[in-house]
This record gives sequence, C-alpha cells and structure tokens, in this order.
Amino acid sequence: MAIDLFYLARSFLDNAADHNHVVSISVFVAVLCLCFIVGHLLEENRWINESITAIVIGCITGTVLLFASNGKHSRILRFDEEFFFIYLLPPIIFNAGFQVKKKQFFQNFLTIMLFGVVGVFISFSIIAFGSWKLFKKIGFHGLHTRDYLAIGAIFSSTDTVCILQVLHQDETPRLYSLVFGEGVVNDATSVVLFNAIQNIDVTKLEGSTVLHVFRDFLYLFFTSTVLGIAEVRMCLTFIITKLFNRHSTDREIALMALMAYLSYTMAELFHLSGILTVFFCGIAMSHYAWHNVTENSRITARHIFATLSFIAEAFIFLYVGMDALDTEKWKAMKASFKTCLGIYSILVFLILLGRAAFVFPLSVLSNYISSRSETALITFRHQVIIWWAGLMRGAVSVALAFNQFTYSGVTWDPVYATMITSTIVVVLFSTLVFGTLTNPLVNFVLPHHLRNRNNPQPKADDATLPLVIPEEPTTSRLLQAKRSLTMLLERPVHTIHAYWRKFDDKYMRPVFGGPT
Amino acid sequence: MAIDLFYLARSFLDNAADHNHVVSISVFVAVLCLCFIVGHLLEENRWINESITAIVIGCITGTVLLFASNGKHSRILRFDEEFFFIYLLPPIIFNAGFQVKKKQFFQNFLTIMLFGVVGVFISFSIIAFGSWKLFKKIGFHGLHTRDYLAIGAIFSSTDTVCILQVLHQDETPRLYSLVFGEGVVNDATSVVLFNAIQNIDVTKLEGSTVLHVFRDFLYLFFTSTVLGIAEVRMCLTFIITKLFNRHSTDREIALMALMAYLSYTMAELFHLSGILTVFFCGIAMSHYAWHNVTENSRITARHIFATLSFIAEAFIFLYVGMDALDTEKWKAMKASFKTCLGIYSILVFLILLGRAAFVFPLSVLSNYISSRSETALITFRHQVIIWWAGLMRGAVSVALAFNQFTYSGVTWDPVYATMITSTIVVVLFSTLVFGTLTNPLVNFVLPHHLRNRNNPQPKADDATLPLVIPEEPTTSRLLQAKRSLTMLLERPVHTIHAYWRKFDDKYMRPVFGGPT
Repeated sequence: MAIDLFYLARSFLDNAADHNHVVSISVFVAVLCLCFIVGHLLEENRWINESITAIVIGCITGTVLLFASNGKHSRILRFDEEFFFIYLLPPIIFNAGFQVKKKQFFQNFLTIMLFGVVGVFISFSIIAFGSWKLFKKIGFHGLHTRDYLAIGAIFSSTDTVCILQVLHQDETPRLYSLVFGEGVVNDATSVVLFNAIQNIDVTKLEGSTVLHVFRDFLYLFFTSTVLGIAEVRMCLTFIITKLFNRHSTDREIALMALMAYLSYTMAELFHLSGILTVFFCGIAMSHYAWHNVTENSRITARHIFATLSFIAEAFIFLYVGMDALDTEKWKAMKASFKTCLGIYSILVFLILLGRAAFVFPLSVLSNYISSRSETALITFRHQVIIWWAGLMRGAVSVALAFNQFTYSGVTWDPVYATMITSTIVVVLFSTLVFGTLTNPLVNFVLPHHLRNRNNPQPKADDATLPLVIPEEPTTSRLLQAKRSLTMLLERPVHTIHAYWRKFDDKYMRPVFGGPT
Repeated sequence: MAIDLFYLARSFLDNAADHNHVVSISVFVAVLCLCFIVGHLLEENRWINESITAIVIGCITGTVLLFASNGKHSRILRFDEEFFFIYLLPPIIFNAGFQVKKKQFFQNFLTIMLFGVVGVFISFSIIAFGSWKLFKKIGFHGLHTRDYLAIGAIFSSTDTVCILQVLHQDETPRLYSLVFGEGVVNDATSVVLFNAIQNIDVTKLEGSTVLHVFRDFLYLFFTSTVLGIAEVRMCLTFIITKLFNRHSTDREIALMALMAYLSYTMAELFHLSGILTVFFCGIAMSHYAWHNVTENSRITARHIFATLSFIAEAFIFLYVGMDALDTEKWKAMKASFKTCLGIYSILVFLILLGRAAFVFPLSVLSNYISSRSETALITFRHQVIIWWAGLMRGAVSVALAFNQFTYSGVTWDPVYATMITSTIVVVLFSTLVFGTLTNPLVNFVLPHHLRNRNNPQPKADDATLPLVIPEEPTTSRLLQAKRSLTMLLERPVHTIHAYWRKFDDKYMRPVFGGPT
C-alpha cells in the first residue's frame, strides 16, 4: 500500500500556521477525552455504544467549528487515509489478534474463512455489479469500471465493533467467535481486494480476472500470515527466552510493540498485507510471549495494546463524525437531492443484499462440512445475527473511499465528491440506525434463555490445545482438562487447530519454548 | 514554542518517495529493537549504559548507510526539533514526574530549585560570555549576540540519564533525589531560557535584561506548574472519582495519557512551558490518580509511561548517533580542523567551569539554609558527584541547537553548520567519555562503605506526608510510620513539603479524594 507521510503532514497542517495546529491538537485531544468520558457514562445504556458516541460528538464538534469559522470548515484535522493506514489501523488489528480467544478462533477457522474471504468476494461482486447497473438507472453517471469495483470493495468491509459490545463471549462463545473472527478477516480481505483492484487491467475484464485476483489474494494471505507468525517466533521469542536471562518489563513491552509494528511495515515493504501480518503477529505474540514474559509484562501488555486500540478507534469515529459536515465536499458535489437519496438507498440495499447472499448459503455449507465433526451447527437465529452484525460500515470504508476518490483528502470532481459524501452518509446511517437497533434485535432473535442452550459448545481440548491463554481460574481449567482428556479419546480430531497443534508441538515448542 | 508538523513531515520524507519511507520506518524500528536487545545484554556491564549503546549503534548504522548510499547520506530520518518537542520530549518528562519519589523531591525542593534554576542562569552566563570571548580568540567569527546567548542555553541543559543508572535510590536517597530533581528542572529551565532569548531585544542588552528574563522565567514557572497541577486535579481526579462509578482500566489509562498530553499542548497554547506543566502534571497525576484507580490501572500506568519514555529516549540517542555522520553538515562547515578542535575544547572547558561555578557555591548556600533544619548537609564528596552528574549533554542540547542553527534540519551557512557539528561532537564526547568514567568516579569518590553513613536521611513523615506512593513493602512502611510519628512530635516542620501538605489536606483532599 502506498504510504506517504507527506500527505499525512499536509493533512495535519491543512490551513494551519505555526500556532494553529497546536490549537488543533489541543482541541482534538480534548474532544477525544470528552468521548471517553461520555462513552463511559453511557456504557450502561445499551442503545448507544462508544462508536456512536464518538460519531455524535464528532458531529457536534463539527457543527460548533462550522459556526465558529463562519461556515468555512468543520474539521480540525484533514482525514488522511495514509495516516489511518500507518498509525491507526495497525494497533487496532494487532490488538484484535492479541485479545482473540485462540481456541475458539482456530476451532472455527474454516467457517471464519468462508465468511471472511469467500463472503467478501460474493458481497463485493453483488455490490460492484449492482451499483454499476442501478446507478445508471437513477441517472448518476461518470464513474469508471475501476470505481465500481472499488465501491464493491469499499462497502464489503464491515465494522463489527458495535455488535461485539452487545454479544457476550461467555453466553454465546461460538457466535461471538464467528462474528469477531469474520470482522477481522473481513477487514483484511477488503483491503487486500481493494489493492488488487488498483492493479488489474480493467480494459480486459474476463472471468479469469476474478480467478487471478482470488489467486493473488490467497498468495498474499498465506505469505502475510507466515511472515507475521515467523517474525514473532524467530525473533521475539528467541530473544526473550534465550537471550534475556533477567526480565525487564519496560524493555519487553517496548520490544513487543516495536516488533509488532515492524511486522506491519515489513509486510508493506514486501508488498504483502500488513493488516493480515499484524493480526497473526498479534495471535502468535499473545501465545508465545505469554509464556515467556513476567506477570507484570503480561498485564501491562494486554492493557497497553487495548488502550492504544481504544484510542485509535475513538480517533477514527470522532473524525468520521467531524468530516461528515465538511462543506468543501458538499459544495463540490453537483448531484440533486433526489439522486443523492437514490444513491444512499441503492448502497444500503446492496449492503443488505450482498451480505444476505453469502451469510445464509455459506452457513448451510459450513453446517454441512461440520456435520461430520461434533461442532455445533449455526442455527437460523445465529445466521440472522451474523447477517446483522456485518451491516455496519466503519472507518475502513471511509479510508478506502478517500483513497479511491480523493487525492490526499481533497476532491473537486463532483462525481467523486458525491461518492465521498455518500460513503460518509452510509457509514453514519449504518452505524447510527443499524447500530442502535442491534441490541433490541439481538434480544428479540436470541432471548436470554435461548443463549446458552442454543449453543452446546463442547468444552474440550483445553489441556491439549496449546493456543489457550490461561484466563479462566485454575480450578475450572483443571476440571475442563480432566473432561477433555476423556473426550479426546472418544472423538476424532477434525479441526485445523489440531493439525496446527501437532506442528506446534513437534517443531515450534522445542525451539521457542512454551508450556509442555 | 513554534511547533510545525509540516517540518516534521518534511523531515520524515526527506529524500523519500512513496515506498522509500516504509523502508525508512522499517529500518529505524528494527535498529531501535536492536538497541533494546543490546542494551539489555550489556546492562550488567556498568561502563556502558543504554544511551551510550544507542549512540554507538546509531553511529554504526550511520556508517553502514553512508557506505550503502555511496557517501550520500547517513540518516534514515532527518532530525527535527519540532518532532522532538511535540512527540518525544513530553513522554520523557511526564514519566520523570510520574516516577519521581515525591517525598524526597519536595523535601529537597529548595535545593533542587537552587541548582535547577539559579544554577542554570549562572552556567548560562558563563558559557555565553566565555564562548563570546574565546571563540574570537581562536579566530572563529560570524556568530551574533543572540547566537552566543543561545549557546549558553544549549550547553546549560544537562542529561542526567547516565548517572541515574549508577546511583541507587536506596543507597543514597538524598543525592539521587538532588541529581534527578535538578536534571528535570534543568531541562525545563534551559528550554524556557532558550525561548526567552528568542524574544529579547539583543540590541539593548543591559543589566535589566537579565532581570527581565528571570522575571519572565519565574512567571512561566509558576503558571506552568499551576496549570499542570490544576488540570489533573480539576479534570482527571474529578472525572475518575466522581463520575466513574465503575472502573475500566483501558479507559482510565487512555484518559490519563491524553490528559497529560493535553496539559502539554495547553501550556504551549498559552505560551507557557509545556515541559514544566507536563512534569508537574506527572507528579500530580501519580499522586491523585494513584489513590483513585484500580490496581491494574496502577501497574499498567507505571509501565506504559515508562515504556513510552524508554522508547522516546532510545529514539533520540539513536538519532543523535546517526546524525553525527551526516555528510551534508560536515561538508557545509568551512572551519579548519584546528579551529574545530579549539571550539570543542572551549565548549567542554566552559561546561566543566560553568557547572563548577554553581554547584559548589550553591551547595554551601543550601547547607547554610538547611543547617537550621535537621536535613543532612551536602558533603564535599556529594558535591563532586553532583558536579559530575550534570556534565553530560544530551538530546535537549541537540534539539535546541537544531532549533537555533538550522531551518528544519538543514543549514548551508558554514558557521551555523560548524555549531551544529560542534554540538553533536560535544554531546557524543560528554556522553561517551564522561559517561563511561561515571561509574569508576562514583566508586572512587563514594566507596560503598561510605554511601549509607554519609547520608543520615531522617526517615520521617511517611505516615503524615500524603505525597508518598506506597512502593515499599507494607511492613517497613508501618515501622517507618511508627517511628515518624514520634519524630514528628520532636522536630518542627520546615520544608516546603509540609506547607504543601497542609494545603493539600485542607482543600484538595476533601474535594478530590485520596487516603485520609
């Protein structure tokens, strides 16, 4: 991905002289603080979540700025997709990998991949094709083939932050794991897909092009994953276990954070997917470093990465809220109100359709595959929730849209300006409307009494699966371990996780350490 | 202080196109990791410390880059004093405030202020006057009055990181506290002084100008301190204690970090000293937040700030090392080798002299003042160590020199280029030579058997002084508390700390919480 710090600076500076952007930074940091405080106070309220709070506060700040500057601008900082991709996204994705429950993730690996990879391709095709057909019908012209393809990728990326605040890992572990896992893989897939689109030759679009993109994608996926895991295993674990005979928390944490960031930049350097690399780096690090660092480092690491991710997320949503009122873009677009409304409706409709088109069929497929193993099936109620969970569009969509339709945050082309404002409207709409409806919907579709019974998750493998962070109290883990040992003798090993484990036990553990 | 992100970006970009600076970032992060690893491995070796390691690795990297680029450049990133002041300095200073032992700091407040404020003014005068006289003698002309004044400020800022790795807080608590406290206040004073110099009218330098600067300084010092403490007390403590009925570690940490940063930018916004504000913000936050956040937040906060500071420090020294080989500057300067050697010798001599000129007299003064109280006197051996401790010059000197003699890291003026290279040479020389000699010297001047006896620190006030972080094990604290209660009845309360405490107990504690 093209990363350009120059634009980052330009974005920061914008219309700012020396003193002006100290003001900008101060205001932005102050508003960010306000977000956290309000977000915390509203935490009990399940209709509103952190993202919605940040967007709303962003809008309010934008309005105030708009009035304060006499309608000139509503933003403190100019949105820059490069800033987003270099500094904001890596901590979020890394943290996702670091905090993910590895057991669940690997047990559901196939299903997650189905949703996160194949699903995105289905959704992408429907949105790209649908917008190409429908935009012309409402009289909105001027986009090229590559733009339509980009729109497909832009609106295929989901934002699962909202629903994760409603679902609970303990109540519905499998559902949670599927939604969370898909969310992460989905982010990665849509970014990779978006980049692939930039490189294909749109003049000769054939059936083979899709295969071509898919092949490239698989190659990227595989190499990025290997890089992320390899870096942690080769470097970090080796350093900490073999070289460090004394422990120094600050040094360990600094090394972990820098190594993670290094994996991201290295991947970008080799034209791989940094997002995937850093995600798997997070998984590998949480696993391997876990067993090799001190108790203090463990606690600190978990919180430090969560905090960074937390700040980055709030930053993004706050920004999207502020940017919604940017007068430049609204003035630049020339489409009539009716056309705009048409575009918004088409996009929202395609999002709903595109997601439905893969969640239900792929769930059936997943159920068919796993019917041979003893994994719980995905019930229809769960399918509805998975479908709903991926309707929200977030920061990745905005970042990709800016990348496609602006030149470092500025656009004067009326058609492109329309696409930017449409993206922002769709993101706001989906986050605010779909987001607010999430809790009632989940409660309706999955009443509390159904949650635990619906999902008879076999509580196995804890003692034998190495990729488990000891988070539960020891007593319950010991109980589970006893149970799982007997279960293991009864049922065959199906999941990817098991193969992974074998490889891990045989080659990795002796070299890099970890509990045996 | 003029803060300009545009230069920051320029500095990052330098000669980099799209892909090039992903390379830069990767290499820099990788080298940073290497620093930590080597630093950790060499930790046992008391001749070498983290700063020296980083500088040496920086030099080596610079050499490699120089060869790799066929002698064109030795740096990955261009040094930018704005980047330094916006992003690297705040975490270091904040962490210093956050980790400082508050009891010791406030008990020695007067002495620390004598060294850190009056001392800097004395040293500044000697270096500025000395360089003005001596540079002309060796035939080095071309500097203006303001430049000489700036040189005084640049070389008055000390770097006490080195000696803090040699002294131990438990063995020589008072000495440690004096050296550490002076180091922090000194940083702040020299930056404030440097800024004051930029604003004075050099055409009419009179005796009153010095008074003028000193008055401005005191005003800045007072307002910045008040701002730093007020922000924490008004906002953070109020929010966390009164509004947050549940605790959320990530949110608390995020708020603490952002509030600290906000205090820095706010101070810059009001043209106060951000460095002082953020230092006192650190002290206030470590005190008040300490009693109001969860155990997890406490541990995480301490490590998170230490880690950030740790990375920032390594970053700076690594950079200084790399920059030392920058061919541009060496080519731009036209002074002969003999003249250069003369400049270096003069500067090192003035540093030695300027520091001696205030450490010994002010120690005597401090001893005279505290002779009425029961505080231990500063022995001659301690004076020698305090003198030596402040001989190293570090990142602040380099940053100020770049600010004065370059325009966003570039200079083509031969005289200014000479001053930049001289600063770097002096920093390298003092860190490497003085730094390496520190441990032998401390052992020679203060043999181990002398350390505890030399300093009969009255172990009092623990139960009554609120500004104490419970870091020692509880048993020893209880013992101390008992002892201190009896001692308190016998001896009068002299120190600033005591007045502070009264104010604290009476007005602050009831409103903002804390142990009673």
